Amino acid sequence: MKYCVYSDGVRRHVGIVSPNLEAVVPLDLSEPEAENGVAALIGRAVAPQPLHDKAVALKDVRLDAPLPRPRRNIFCIGKNYSEHAAEFASSGFDSSAAAGVVPKAPIVFSKVPETVIASGEPIRIEPDVSTAIDYEAELAVVIGKAGKGISREAALDHVWGYTIVNDVTARDLQGLHSQWLIGKSQDSFCPMGPWIVTRDEFDLGNAGIRCFVNNELRQSSNTSLLIFDVPRIIETISAGITLLPGDVIATGTPAGVGIGFTPPKYLSPGDRVRIEIDGIGVLENPVI
Amino acid sequence: MKYCVYSDGVRRHVGIVSPNLEAVVPLDLSEPEAENGVAALIGRAVAPQPLHDKAVALKDVRLDAPLPRPRRNIFCIGKNYSEHAAEFASSGFDSSAAAGVVPKAPIVFSKVPETVIASGEPIRIEPDVSTAIDYEAELAVVIGKAGKGISREAALDHVWGYTIVNDVTARDLQGLHSQWLIGKSQDSFCPMGPWIVTRDEFDLGNAGIRCFVNNELRQSSNTSLLIFDVPRIIETISAGITLLPGDVIATGTPAGVGIGFTPPKYLSPGDRVRIEIDGIGVLENPVI
Repeated sequence: MKYCVYSDGVRRHVGIVSPNLEAVVPLDLSEPEAENGVAALIGRAVAPQPLHDKAVALKDVRLDAPLPRPRRNIFCIGKNYSEHAAEFASSGFDSSAAAGVVPKAPIVFSKVPETVIASGEPIRIEPDVSTAIDYEAELAVVIGKAGKGISREAALDHVWGYTIVNDVTARDLQGLHSQWLIGKSQDSFCPMGPWIVTRDEFDLGNAGIRCFVNNELRQSSNTSLLIFDVPRIIETISAGITLLPGDVIATGTPAGVGIGFTPPKYLSPGDRVRIEIDGIGVLENPVI
Repeated sequence: MKYCVYSDGVRRHVGIVSPNLEAVVPLDLSEPEAENGVAALIGRAVAPQPLHDKAVALKDVRLDAPLPRPRRNIFCIGKNYSEHAAEFASSGFDSSAAAGVVPKAPIVFSKVPETVIASGEPIRIEPDVSTAIDYEAELAVVIGKAGKGISREAALDHVWGYTIVNDVTARDLQGLHSQWLIGKSQDSFCPMGPWIVTRDEFDLGNAGIRCFVNNELRQSSNTSLLIFDVPRIIETISAGITLLPGDVIATGTPAGVGIGFTPPKYLSPGDRVRIEIDGIGVLENPVI
Protein backbone atom coordinates (compact mmCIF):
# COMPACT_ATOMS: atom_id res chain seq x y z
CA MET A 1 0.00 0.00 0.00
CA LYS A 2 1.14 3.53 -0.73
CA TYR A 3 0.14 6.13 1.86
CA CYS A 4 0.39 9.79 0.96
CA VAL A 5 -0.30 13.02 2.81
CA TYR A 6 -1.96 15.88 1.01
CA SER A 7 -3.87 19.10 1.39
CA ASP A 8 -7.12 19.75 -0.41
CA GLY A 9 -6.95 23.48 0.23
CA VAL A 10 -8.95 23.20 3.44
CA ARG A 11 -7.07 20.70 5.60
CA ARG A 12 -4.42 17.99 5.59
CA HIS A 13 -5.39 14.37 4.88
CA VAL A 14 -3.70 10.99 4.89
CA GLY A 15 -4.78 8.83 1.96
CA ILE A 16 -4.22 5.62 0.03
CA VAL A 17 -2.81 6.07 -3.47
CA SER A 18 -4.57 3.89 -6.05
CA PRO A 19 -2.48 1.23 -7.83
CA ASN A 20 -2.64 3.20 -11.10
CA LEU A 21 -1.42 6.33 -9.24
CA GLU A 22 -4.43 8.31 -10.48
CA ALA A 23 -6.58 8.61 -7.36
CA VAL A 24 -6.23 9.04 -3.64
CA VAL A 25 -8.75 7.81 -1.07
CA PRO A 26 -8.64 9.74 2.21
CA LEU A 27 -8.68 7.90 5.53
CA ASP A 28 -11.14 8.64 8.30
CA LEU A 29 -8.81 10.69 10.54
CA SER A 30 -9.50 13.85 12.50
CA GLU A 31 -7.74 17.03 11.43
CA PRO A 32 -5.27 16.93 14.38
CA GLU A 33 -4.47 13.27 13.62
CA ALA A 34 -3.89 14.00 9.93
CA GLU A 35 -1.56 16.88 10.82
CA ASN A 36 0.98 14.20 11.85
CA GLY A 37 0.88 12.66 8.39
CA VAL A 38 1.52 8.94 8.08
CA ALA A 39 2.70 8.94 11.72
CA ALA A 40 -1.04 8.91 12.54
CA LEU A 41 -1.18 5.35 11.18
CA ILE A 42 1.95 3.94 12.79
CA GLY A 43 1.38 1.83 15.87
CA ARG A 44 -2.40 2.12 15.61
CA ALA A 45 -4.36 -0.96 16.71
CA VAL A 46 -7.22 -0.43 14.26
CA ALA A 47 -6.60 1.04 10.80
CA PRO A 48 -8.80 4.04 9.97
CA GLN A 49 -11.47 3.44 7.34
CA PRO A 50 -10.90 4.57 3.75
CA LEU A 51 -13.56 7.09 2.71
CA HIS A 52 -14.13 5.84 -0.84
CA ASP A 53 -16.84 8.38 -1.56
CA LYS A 54 -14.30 11.16 -0.94
CA ALA A 55 -11.69 9.91 -3.41
CA VAL A 56 -9.99 12.62 -5.43
CA ALA A 57 -7.69 12.72 -8.44
CA LEU A 58 -4.05 12.68 -7.37
CA LYS A 59 -3.29 15.46 -9.86
CA ASP A 60 -5.78 17.73 -8.09
CA VAL A 61 -4.16 17.65 -4.64
CA ARG A 62 -1.01 19.22 -3.26
CA LEU A 63 1.21 16.53 -1.75
CA ASP A 64 2.74 17.14 1.65
CA ALA A 65 5.74 15.14 2.87
CA PRO A 66 4.50 11.77 4.19
CA LEU A 67 6.02 12.67 7.59
CA PRO A 68 5.72 16.46 7.49
CA ARG A 69 7.66 16.83 10.73
CA PRO A 70 9.45 13.68 11.94
CA ARG A 71 9.42 13.21 15.72
CA ARG A 72 13.15 13.88 16.05
CA ASN A 73 16.18 14.42 13.84
CA ILE A 74 16.40 12.08 10.87
CA PHE A 75 19.10 9.43 11.23
CA CYS A 76 21.34 9.36 8.14
CA ILE A 77 24.06 6.99 6.98
CA GLY A 78 27.19 8.32 5.25
CA LYS A 79 29.39 6.71 2.60
CA ASN A 80 27.20 3.61 2.28
CA TYR A 81 27.79 2.77 -1.42
CA SER A 82 31.40 1.89 -2.34
CA GLU A 83 31.66 4.03 -5.47
CA HIS A 84 30.24 7.05 -3.64
CA ALA A 85 32.62 6.48 -0.73
CA ALA A 86 35.49 6.65 -3.23
CA GLU A 87 34.25 9.81 -5.00
CA PHE A 88 33.65 11.56 -1.65
CA ALA A 89 37.06 10.53 -0.23
CA SER A 90 38.77 12.18 -3.20
CA SER A 91 36.65 15.36 -3.09
CA GLY A 92 38.54 17.25 -0.40
CA PHE A 93 35.39 17.63 1.73
CA ASP A 94 35.63 14.31 3.58
CA SER A 95 36.11 15.15 7.25
CA SER A 96 35.50 11.43 7.95
CA ALA A 97 38.63 10.38 6.06
CA ALA A 98 40.04 8.79 9.21
CA ALA A 99 37.22 6.24 9.00
CA GLY A 100 38.75 4.89 5.77
CA VAL A 101 37.47 5.21 2.21
CA VAL A 102 35.00 2.40 2.88
CA PRO A 103 33.93 2.72 6.51
CA LYS A 104 34.44 -0.16 8.95
CA ALA A 105 31.14 0.63 10.67
CA PRO A 106 28.14 2.71 9.61
CA ILE A 107 28.74 6.48 9.74
CA VAL A 108 25.62 7.90 11.41
CA PHE A 109 24.69 11.58 11.57
CA SER A 110 21.44 13.55 11.63
CA LYS A 111 19.36 16.25 9.94
CA VAL A 112 16.93 18.40 11.93
CA PRO A 113 13.26 17.45 11.37
CA GLU A 114 12.29 20.90 10.10
CA THR A 115 14.42 20.34 6.97
CA VAL A 116 11.63 18.16 5.54
CA ILE A 117 9.77 19.47 2.49
CA ALA A 118 7.34 17.74 0.14
CA SER A 119 7.84 16.66 -3.44
CA GLY A 120 7.35 19.79 -5.52
CA GLU A 121 8.48 22.24 -2.85
CA PRO A 122 11.65 24.22 -3.54
CA ILE A 123 15.14 23.51 -2.25
CA ARG A 124 16.33 26.97 -1.25
CA ILE A 125 19.85 28.15 -1.96
CA GLU A 126 21.20 30.95 0.21
CA PRO A 127 24.41 32.03 -1.51
CA ASP A 128 25.60 33.97 1.55
CA VAL A 129 25.61 30.72 3.53
CA SER A 130 26.78 28.10 1.03
CA THR A 131 28.05 28.04 -2.53
CA ALA A 132 28.36 24.27 -2.81
CA ILE A 133 24.92 22.69 -2.52
CA ASP A 134 24.64 19.09 -3.63
CA TYR A 135 21.94 16.41 -4.06
CA GLU A 136 21.98 12.88 -2.61
CA ALA A 137 19.31 10.37 -3.69
CA GLU A 138 18.53 7.97 -0.84
CA LEU A 139 16.20 5.20 0.22
CA ALA A 140 14.68 6.04 3.61
CA VAL A 141 13.32 3.58 6.17
CA VAL A 142 10.37 4.47 8.41
CA ILE A 143 10.34 2.66 11.75
CA GLY A 144 7.03 1.18 12.88
CA LYS A 145 7.82 -0.58 16.14
CA ALA A 146 10.02 0.60 19.00
CA GLY A 147 13.03 -1.47 19.90
CA LYS A 148 16.49 -1.59 21.41
CA GLY A 149 19.14 -4.23 20.81
CA ILE A 150 17.32 -5.31 17.65
CA SER A 151 19.01 -8.24 15.87
CA ARG A 152 19.57 -8.24 12.11
CA GLU A 153 17.14 -11.14 11.85
CA ALA A 154 14.35 -9.22 13.62
CA ALA A 155 15.17 -5.81 12.11
CA LEU A 156 12.65 -5.75 9.29
CA ASP A 157 9.80 -6.48 11.74
CA HIS A 158 10.49 -2.98 13.07
CA VAL A 159 10.10 -1.33 9.66
CA TRP A 160 6.76 0.22 8.70
CA GLY A 161 7.66 1.27 5.19
CA TYR A 162 9.98 3.02 2.78
CA THR A 163 10.18 6.39 1.11
CA ILE A 164 12.67 8.56 -0.81
CA VAL A 165 14.70 11.42 0.58
CA ASN A 166 17.07 13.85 -1.02
CA ASP A 167 19.81 14.32 1.58
CA VAL A 168 20.68 17.79 0.31
CA THR A 169 24.11 18.85 1.54
CA ALA A 170 26.12 22.06 1.68
CA ARG A 171 29.55 20.58 0.94
CA ASP A 172 31.46 23.65 2.11
CA LEU A 173 29.70 23.61 5.50
CA GLN A 174 30.02 19.82 5.76
CA GLY A 175 33.78 20.21 5.52
CA LEU A 176 34.14 23.43 7.53
CA HIS A 177 32.29 22.18 10.61
CA SER A 178 33.83 18.68 10.57
CA GLN A 179 30.71 17.07 12.03
CA TRP A 180 28.02 17.11 9.36
CA LEU A 181 24.92 18.38 11.19
CA ILE A 182 25.09 21.96 9.91
CA GLY A 183 25.92 21.07 6.30
CA LYS A 184 23.01 18.62 6.26
CA SER A 185 20.41 20.62 8.20
CA GLN A 186 19.97 23.87 6.31
CA ASP A 187 16.31 24.85 5.95
CA SER A 188 14.62 22.91 3.07
CA PHE A 189 17.42 20.31 2.84
CA CYS A 190 15.28 17.18 3.16
CA PRO A 191 12.80 16.65 0.34
CA MET A 192 10.81 13.52 1.29
CA GLY A 193 8.18 11.53 -0.59
CA PRO A 194 6.22 11.30 -2.71
CA TRP A 195 4.63 8.80 -0.23
CA ILE A 196 5.46 5.84 1.98
CA VAL A 197 5.24 2.30 0.60
CA THR A 198 4.52 -0.35 3.23
CA ARG A 199 7.29 -2.87 3.72
CA ASP A 200 5.31 -5.81 2.30
CA GLU A 201 5.19 -4.13 -1.14
CA PHE A 202 8.83 -3.13 -1.50
CA ASP A 203 11.70 -5.26 -2.81
CA LEU A 204 14.31 -3.97 -0.38
CA GLY A 205 17.19 -6.03 -1.73
CA ASN A 206 16.83 -5.08 -5.38
CA ALA A 207 15.43 -1.64 -6.11
CA GLY A 208 16.91 0.66 -8.74
CA ILE A 209 17.69 4.19 -7.52
CA ARG A 210 18.29 7.04 -9.94
CA CYS A 211 18.77 10.79 -9.73
CA PHE A 212 18.39 13.27 -12.57
CA VAL A 213 19.30 16.94 -12.54
CA ASN A 214 17.50 18.74 -15.36
CA ASN A 215 16.92 15.39 -17.09
CA GLU A 216 20.64 14.48 -16.98
CA LEU A 217 21.11 11.12 -15.26
CA ARG A 218 23.60 11.68 -12.43
CA GLN A 219 23.11 8.73 -10.08
CA SER A 220 22.05 5.20 -11.04
CA SER A 221 22.48 2.32 -8.65
CA ASN A 222 20.59 -0.37 -6.78
CA THR A 223 19.81 -0.96 -3.12
CA SER A 224 21.58 -4.33 -3.49
CA LEU A 225 24.83 -2.34 -3.46
CA LEU A 226 24.44 -0.82 0.02
CA ILE A 227 27.60 -1.53 2.05
CA PHE A 228 25.59 -1.78 5.28
CA ASP A 229 22.10 -3.10 4.51
CA VAL A 230 18.94 -2.04 6.34
CA PRO A 231 19.04 -4.87 8.94
CA ARG A 232 22.65 -4.01 9.77
CA ILE A 233 21.83 -0.29 10.07
CA ILE A 234 18.92 -0.99 12.43
CA GLU A 235 21.07 -3.34 14.50
CA THR A 236 23.80 -0.71 14.76
CA ILE A 237 21.63 2.25 15.77
CA SER A 238 19.41 0.29 18.14
CA ALA A 239 22.28 -1.37 20.02
CA GLY A 240 22.19 1.41 22.60
CA ILE A 241 19.58 3.86 21.29
CA THR A 242 15.90 2.96 21.52
CA LEU A 243 14.42 3.30 18.04
CA LEU A 244 10.90 4.74 18.09
CA PRO A 245 7.85 4.54 15.82
CA GLY A 246 8.07 7.27 13.20
CA ASP A 247 11.87 7.44 13.21
CA VAL A 248 13.32 7.94 9.74
CA ILE A 249 16.66 6.50 8.63
CA ALA A 250 18.14 7.67 5.32
CA THR A 251 20.39 4.86 4.12
CA GLY A 252 23.06 6.72 2.13
CA THR A 253 23.58 7.81 -1.44
CA PRO A 254 25.23 6.10 -4.45
CA ALA A 255 27.94 7.59 -6.67
CA GLY A 256 27.23 10.52 -8.96
CA VAL A 257 26.70 13.42 -6.58
CA GLY A 258 27.83 16.87 -7.69
CA ILE A 259 31.19 16.76 -5.94
CA GLY A 260 31.97 13.53 -7.79
CA PHE A 261 32.47 15.50 -11.02
CA THR A 262 35.51 17.58 -12.06
CA PRO A 263 34.70 20.41 -11.81
CA PRO A 264 31.88 19.78 -9.29
CA LYS A 265 28.31 20.09 -10.53
CA TYR A 266 26.58 21.89 -7.67
CA LEU A 267 22.92 22.86 -7.72
CA SER A 268 21.87 26.29 -8.99
CA PRO A 269 18.60 28.21 -8.93
CA GLY A 270 16.40 26.97 -11.75
CA ASP A 271 17.59 23.35 -11.52
CA ARG A 272 15.18 20.46 -10.96
CA VAL A 273 16.23 17.36 -9.03
CA ARG A 274 14.27 14.19 -9.78
CA ILE A 275 14.84 11.01 -7.78
CA GLU A 276 13.27 7.66 -8.67
CA ILE A 277 13.31 4.47 -6.66
CA ASP A 278 11.71 1.42 -8.28
CA GLY A 279 8.64 0.34 -6.35
CA ILE A 280 8.28 3.68 -4.57
CA GLY A 281 7.91 6.49 -7.08
CA VAL A 282 9.33 9.88 -7.97
CA LEU A 283 10.48 12.73 -5.70
CA GLU A 284 11.04 15.91 -7.68
CA ASN A 285 11.99 19.35 -6.42
CA PRO A 286 12.91 22.65 -8.03
CA VAL A 287 15.87 24.65 -6.76
CA ILE A 288 15.38 28.36 -6.14
CA MET B 1 14.71 33.30 38.28
CA LYS B 2 15.31 29.55 38.53
CA TYR B 3 12.58 27.40 37.00
CA CYS B 4 12.50 23.71 37.84
CA VAL B 5 10.30 20.81 36.82
CA TYR B 6 9.25 18.24 39.38
CA SER B 7 6.83 15.51 40.25
CA ASP B 8 4.94 15.44 43.50
CA GLY B 9 3.99 11.78 43.09
CA VAL B 10 0.72 12.69 41.37
CA ARG B 11 1.66 14.86 38.41
CA ARG B 12 4.41 16.97 36.90
CA HIS B 13 4.71 20.67 37.79
CA VAL B 14 6.83 23.61 36.70
CA GLY B 15 7.90 25.75 39.63
CA ILE B 16 10.04 28.66 40.79
CA VAL B 17 12.93 27.73 43.06
CA SER B 18 13.28 30.08 46.03
CA PRO B 19 16.49 32.14 46.29
CA ASN B 20 17.66 30.05 49.29
CA LEU B 21 17.04 26.85 47.25
CA GLU B 22 14.80 25.47 49.99
CA ALA B 23 11.32 25.81 48.49
CA VAL B 24 9.58 25.55 45.16
CA VAL B 25 6.41 27.40 44.22
CA PRO B 26 4.38 25.69 41.47
CA LEU B 27 3.00 27.69 38.57
CA ASP B 28 -0.64 27.63 37.53
CA LEU B 29 -0.30 25.29 34.53
CA SER B 30 -2.53 22.46 33.40
CA GLU B 31 -1.18 18.93 33.58
CA PRO B 32 -0.64 18.69 29.77
CA GLU B 33 1.16 22.06 29.79
CA ALA B 34 3.41 21.01 32.67
CA GLU B 35 4.29 17.77 30.87
CA ASN B 36 6.40 19.91 28.52
CA GLY B 37 8.44 21.23 31.42
CA VAL B 38 9.90 24.72 31.13
CA ALA B 39 8.98 24.69 27.42
CA ALA B 40 5.47 25.54 28.68
CA LEU B 41 6.78 28.97 29.70
CA ILE B 42 8.83 29.79 26.61
CA GLY B 43 7.19 32.15 24.15
CA ARG B 44 4.15 32.64 26.37
CA ALA B 45 2.58 36.09 26.25
CA VAL B 46 1.39 36.03 29.86
CA ALA B 47 3.40 34.28 32.58
CA PRO B 48 1.40 31.76 34.61
CA GLN B 49 0.66 32.73 38.21
CA PRO B 50 2.79 31.28 41.03
CA LEU B 51 0.61 29.31 43.46
CA HIS B 52 2.26 30.43 46.69
CA ASP B 53 -0.14 28.47 48.87
CA LYS B 54 1.06 25.27 47.19
CA ALA B 55 4.77 25.83 47.85
CA VAL B 56 6.66 22.69 48.86
CA ALA B 57 10.12 21.97 50.22
CA LEU B 58 12.58 21.31 47.40
CA LYS B 59 13.93 18.29 49.28
CA ASP B 60 10.47 16.68 49.23
CA VAL B 61 10.04 16.63 45.44
CA ARG B 62 11.61 14.54 42.72
CA LEU B 63 13.20 16.79 40.10
CA ASP B 64 12.57 16.09 36.45
CA ALA B 65 14.82 17.49 33.74
CA PRO B 66 13.80 21.11 33.06
CA LEU B 67 13.10 20.12 29.43
CA PRO B 68 12.13 16.47 29.89
CA ARG B 69 11.98 15.90 26.14
CA PRO B 70 13.47 18.68 24.01
CA ARG B 71 11.57 19.36 20.78
CA ARG B 72 14.35 17.96 18.58
CA ASN B 73 17.90 16.67 18.92
CA ILE B 74 20.10 18.74 21.20
CA PHE B 75 22.71 20.79 19.32
CA CYS B 76 26.18 20.20 20.78
CA ILE B 77 29.54 21.89 20.21
CA GLY B 78 32.74 19.83 20.15
CA LYS B 79 36.28 20.80 21.16
CA ASN B 80 35.28 24.26 22.38
CA TYR B 81 37.87 24.74 25.16
CA SER B 82 41.52 24.78 24.01
CA GLU B 83 42.92 22.46 26.67
CA HIS B 84 40.17 19.92 26.03
CA ALA B 85 40.73 20.14 22.28
CA ALA B 86 44.38 19.22 22.91
CA GLU B 87 43.62 16.30 25.24
CA PHE B 88 41.02 14.91 22.82
CA ALA B 89 43.28 15.30 19.77
CA SER B 90 45.92 13.15 21.48
CA SER B 91 43.44 10.50 22.68
CA GLY B 92 43.22 8.41 19.52
CA PHE B 93 39.43 8.84 19.40
CA ASP B 94 39.36 12.12 17.51
CA SER B 95 37.67 11.44 14.18
CA SER B 96 37.54 15.23 13.70
CA ALA B 97 41.35 15.50 13.60
CA ALA B 98 41.20 16.96 10.08
CA ALA B 99 39.50 20.02 11.60
CA GLY B 100 42.73 20.81 13.47
CA VAL B 101 43.47 20.57 17.17
CA VAL B 102 41.68 23.86 17.74
CA PRO B 103 38.83 23.98 15.21
CA LYS B 104 38.58 26.84 12.71
CA ALA B 105 34.78 26.83 13.01
CA PRO B 106 32.42 25.37 15.60
CA ILE B 107 32.06 21.58 15.39
CA VAL B 108 28.32 20.93 15.69
CA PHE B 109 26.70 17.53 16.24
CA SER B 110 23.57 16.30 18.01
CA LYS B 111 22.17 13.99 20.70
CA VAL B 112 18.67 12.51 20.38
CA PRO B 113 16.14 14.18 22.72
CA GLU B 114 15.28 10.94 24.52
CA THR B 115 18.79 10.85 26.04
CA VAL B 116 17.68 13.47 28.57
CA ILE B 117 17.47 12.41 32.21
CA ALA B 118 17.04 14.45 35.40
CA SER B 119 19.54 15.19 38.12
CA GLY B 120 19.56 12.11 40.34
CA GLU B 121 18.60 9.66 37.61
CA PRO B 122 21.18 7.01 36.65
CA ILE B 123 23.54 7.06 33.70
CA ARG B 124 23.28 3.49 32.43
CA ILE B 125 26.32 1.56 31.27
CA GLU B 126 25.71 -1.33 28.90
CA PRO B 127 29.05 -3.15 28.73
CA ASP B 128 28.04 -5.11 25.64
CA VAL B 129 27.67 -1.82 23.75
CA SER B 130 30.49 0.36 25.11
CA THR B 131 33.42 -0.06 27.48
CA ALA B 132 34.61 3.55 27.32
CA ILE B 133 31.94 5.82 28.78
CA ASP B 134 33.03 9.33 29.64
CA TYR B 135 31.58 12.47 31.25
CA GLU B 136 31.58 16.00 29.81
CA ALA B 137 30.46 18.94 31.96
CA GLU B 138 28.83 21.62 29.81
CA LEU B 139 26.93 24.87 29.96
CA ALA B 140 23.72 24.57 27.92
CA VAL B 141 21.78 27.39 26.30
CA VAL B 142 17.98 27.27 26.00
CA ILE B 143 16.59 29.23 23.05
CA GLY B 144 13.57 31.41 23.72
CA LYS B 145 12.88 33.18 20.44
CA ALA B 146 12.98 31.74 16.92
CA GLY B 147 15.43 33.18 14.48
CA LYS B 148 17.53 32.69 11.37
CA GLY B 149 20.57 34.66 10.35
CA ILE B 150 20.94 35.93 13.92
CA SER B 151 23.89 38.32 14.38
CA ARG B 152 26.30 38.00 17.30
CA GLU B 153 25.03 41.32 18.59
CA ALA B 154 21.41 40.12 18.67
CA ALA B 155 22.16 36.54 19.71
CA LEU B 156 21.54 36.83 23.45
CA ASP B 157 18.05 38.26 22.80
CA HIS B 158 17.19 34.79 21.51
CA VAL B 159 18.30 33.06 24.74
CA TRP B 160 15.73 32.17 27.37
CA GLY B 161 18.08 30.75 29.96
CA TYR B 162 20.89 28.42 30.88
CA THR B 163 21.23 25.00 32.42
CA ILE B 164 23.84 22.27 32.87
CA VAL B 165 24.19 19.13 30.80
CA ASN B 166 26.50 16.17 31.08
CA ASP B 167 27.32 15.30 27.46
CA VAL B 168 27.97 11.63 28.30
CA THR B 169 29.95 9.96 25.52
CA ALA B 170 30.87 6.41 24.54
CA ARG B 171 34.41 7.11 23.30
CA ASP B 172 34.74 3.78 21.48
CA LEU B 173 31.51 4.39 19.52
CA GLN B 174 32.44 8.04 18.91
CA GLY B 175 35.59 6.85 17.17
CA LEU B 176 34.18 3.76 15.45
CA HIS B 177 31.29 5.55 13.73
CA SER B 178 33.31 8.65 12.75
CA GLN B 179 30.31 10.95 13.03
CA TRP B 180 29.46 11.32 16.72
CA LEU B 181 25.66 10.84 16.85
CA ILE B 182 25.74 7.21 18.06
CA GLY B 183 28.50 7.69 20.65
CA LYS B 184 26.62 10.70 22.05
CA SER B 185 23.04 9.40 21.88
CA GLN B 186 22.99 6.20 23.91
CA ASP B 187 19.95 5.99 26.19
CA SER B 188 20.45 8.08 29.42
CA PHE B 189 23.42 10.00 27.99
CA CYS B 190 22.13 13.54 28.62
CA PRO B 191 21.67 14.40 32.30
CA MET B 192 20.17 17.92 32.35
CA GLY B 193 19.40 20.27 35.20
CA PRO B 194 18.91 20.81 38.00
CA TRP B 195 16.84 23.70 36.59
CA ILE B 196 17.00 26.57 34.09
CA VAL B 197 18.26 29.99 35.18
CA THR B 198 16.84 32.88 33.17
CA ARG B 199 19.40 34.79 31.16
CA ASP B 200 19.12 37.98 33.21
CA GLU B 201 20.46 36.18 36.30
CA PHE B 202 23.45 34.41 34.78
CA ASP B 203 26.95 35.83 34.28
CA LEU B 204 27.56 34.17 30.92
CA GLY B 205 31.08 35.50 30.45
CA ASN B 206 32.48 34.44 33.79
CA ALA B 207 30.99 31.31 35.35
CA GLY B 208 33.12 28.61 36.96
CA ILE B 209 32.39 25.09 35.70
CA ARG B 210 33.55 22.03 37.63
CA CYS B 211 33.07 18.29 37.42
CA PHE B 212 33.73 15.79 40.17
CA VAL B 213 33.69 12.00 39.88
CA ASN B 214 33.30 10.45 43.35
CA ASN B 215 34.42 13.74 44.91
CA GLU B 216 37.63 13.86 42.82
CA LEU B 217 37.82 17.15 40.92
CA ARG B 218 38.30 16.26 37.25
CA GLN B 219 37.29 19.37 35.33
CA SER B 220 37.63 22.98 36.48
CA SER B 221 37.33 25.85 34.06
CA ASN B 222 35.36 28.97 33.31
CA THR B 223 32.93 29.94 30.56
CA SER B 224 35.28 32.84 29.75
CA LEU B 225 37.55 30.21 28.14
CA LEU B 226 35.10 29.02 25.48
CA ILE B 227 36.80 29.18 22.05
CA PHE B 228 33.49 30.02 20.34
CA ASP B 229 31.30 31.98 22.73
CA VAL B 230 27.51 31.74 22.90
CA PRO B 231 26.82 34.62 20.47
CA ARG B 232 29.20 33.09 17.91
CA ILE B 233 27.59 29.65 18.31
CA ILE B 234 24.08 31.07 17.79
CA GLU B 235 25.28 33.04 14.77
CA THR B 236 26.84 29.90 13.27
CA ILE B 237 23.92 27.54 13.71
CA SER B 238 21.25 30.05 12.75
CA ALA B 239 22.99 31.17 9.56
CA GLY B 240 20.98 28.63 7.56
CA ILE B 241 19.00 26.71 10.18
CA THR B 242 16.03 28.38 11.86
CA LEU B 243 16.54 28.14 15.62
CA LEU B 244 13.32 27.46 17.49
CA PRO B 245 12.02 28.17 21.00
CA GLY B 246 12.99 25.29 23.27
CA ASP B 247 16.10 24.35 21.30
CA VAL B 248 19.01 23.34 23.52
CA ILE B 249 22.66 24.00 22.63
CA ALA B 250 25.37 22.35 24.75
CA THR B 251 28.43 24.55 24.43
CA GLY B 252 31.28 22.06 24.84
CA THR B 253 33.36 20.68 27.69
CA PRO B 254 36.63 21.83 29.27
CA ALA B 255 39.73 19.69 29.83
CA GLY B 256 39.73 16.83 32.32
CA VAL B 257 37.43 14.26 30.73
CA GLY B 258 38.23 10.58 31.31
CA ILE B 259 40.15 10.09 28.07
CA GLY B 260 42.42 12.99 29.03
CA PHE B 261 44.12 10.76 31.65
CA THR B 262 46.72 8.04 31.07
CA PRO B 263 45.34 5.46 31.45
CA PRO B 264 41.84 6.81 30.74
CA LYS B 265 39.44 7.18 33.67
CA TYR B 266 36.16 5.95 32.24
CA LEU B 267 32.95 5.76 34.24
CA SER B 268 32.05 2.55 36.09
CA PRO B 269 28.90 1.37 37.85
CA GLY B 270 28.80 2.87 41.32
CA ASP B 271 30.44 6.16 40.30
CA ARG B 272 28.75 9.50 40.91
CA VAL B 273 29.25 12.44 38.52
CA ARG B 274 28.67 15.90 39.99
CA ILE B 275 28.75 19.00 37.82
CA GLU B 276 28.62 22.55 39.19
CA ILE B 277 28.27 25.78 37.28
CA ASP B 278 28.42 28.99 39.31
CA GLY B 279 25.09 30.78 39.21
CA ILE B 280 23.17 27.72 38.07
CA GLY B 281 23.59 24.89 40.55
CA VAL B 282 24.54 21.23 40.78
CA LEU B 283 23.71 18.36 38.42
CA GLU B 284 24.55 15.01 40.01
CA ASN B 285 23.96 11.53 38.64
CA PRO B 286 24.87 8.03 39.74
CA VAL B 287 26.25 5.53 37.22
CA ILE B 288 24.75 2.04 37.17
